[in-house]
Amino acid sequence: MPNLGSNPLACARTEFQCYALAFDYGQRHRIELDAARRVAQDMGAIEFRIVRLDLRAIGGSALTANLDVPKGRSLDVIGQGIPITYVPARNTVFLAIALGYAEVLGAWDIFFGANVLEYSGYPDCRPALLQAFECLANVATKAATEGKGTLQIHAPLLHLTKAEIIRLGTELGVNYSLTHSCYDPDTAGRACGACDSCVLRRKGFAEAGIPDPTIYAA
Amino acid sequence: MPNLGSNPLACARTEFQCYALAFDYGQRHRIELDAARRVAQDMGAIEFRIVRLDLRAIGGSALTANLDVPKGRSLDVIGQGIPITYVPARNTVFLAIALGYAEVLGAWDIFFGANVLEYSGYPDCRPALLQAFECLANVATKAATEGKGTLQIHAPLLHLTKAEIIRLGTELGVNYSLTHSCYDPDTAGRACGACDSCVLRRKGFAEAGIPDPTIYAA
Repeated sequence: MPNLGSNPLACARTEFQCYALAFDYGQRHRIELDAARRVAQDMGAIEFRIVRLDLRAIGGSALTANLDVPKGRSLDVIGQGIPITYVPARNTVFLAIALGYAEVLGAWDIFFGANVLEYSGYPDCRPALLQAFECLANVATKAATEGKGTLQIHAPLLHLTKAEIIRLGTELGVNYSLTHSCYDPDTAGRACGACDSCVLRRKGFAEAGIPDPTIYAA
Repeated sequence: MPNLGSNPLACARTEFQCYALAFDYGQRHRIELDAARRVAQDMGAIEFRIVRLDLRAIGGSALTANLDVPKGRSLDVIGQGIPITYVPARNTVFLAIALGYAEVLGAWDIFFGANVLEYSGYPDCRPALLQAFECLANVATKAATEGKGTLQIHAPLLHLTKAEIIRLGTELGVNYSLTHSCYDPDTAGRACGACDSCVLRRKGFAEAGIPDPTIYAA
């Protein structure tokens, strides 16, 4: 449930019974798992599961390896290129595990919080990835192979700005005081206020004209 | 490195420097990881990594949940339907993690031991999956997005019989006494001789006319 991941759940529950999935992948902001659990409970998910997978074993990212998370970057800079917080193929791995979970549940709909605007340049948040994954999903599983249905990847936030996401989530009952976005929280769990994720979150609340309940260290 | 996974490595090393990857995913035949390490060393892989991911968290398979592995099934029965040893979306998850590892390495070629013949009916071993994954790979990663190359998924065993696989591996120097296929080995690590994987392995060696070095419990 990365970055404002409470919103896909808020969207999904308007139509579906929800089973929430989070990933303990060696991220330095592991505290987001507690937030994910609180949000899943608050929003009435039937189940909340954490899958452990150690992406540190392949390295390559400031989120999982011993590299510094960039701080204080301007919005212009954030919008350019792919930063070191990119975790190679992370969202593909998350979607693949969600696909397996969907198959176990007999579910056909996967909700995912990818966002293409102000997205820190991650390639695995793009519409092309989601389309390719949906094609893959429908040849990859037992149930789809047997023609029992069609898997759909829903990305309700894909084309929204962060401000629109926050307005939508607020309308749908997301309690943002339960959520966590920061890549590099301090030991007390406070958001750093300066990583790309904090910068985008703050901007989103400001532009939405909605008070930001996040406790920032700076 | 599931089921005769030594062969893709034997094929890959004829053209490439190899980085071997295995998965500790909660499988009951965890002993295959020791085999994978021995094989990777024996075949001169530059690196051997194990990625831990707990697919037991999503359940749904006799390989990871507390369900009985089918035994003593005839080849006719093995060829029909998808058995309970199928792990939902497992190969999609493995490929996704391999994709991330390839990206970290700057590699463009992923070798994978999928086999479509005598394959126990797993949907995630089919050519359609590999094609779909290759499409996905080329929109999912930073390097591919930046146009630096094209990711290729190689499945050199895809259309071979088990006998052909064993002949090929033998020609390419695979030491099958180091390998492991059984889904349900005993505590001494001996193959059960009766699960689908053992049945197919035995048949392969018999048809290839090559002595089977496997120590079977029965």
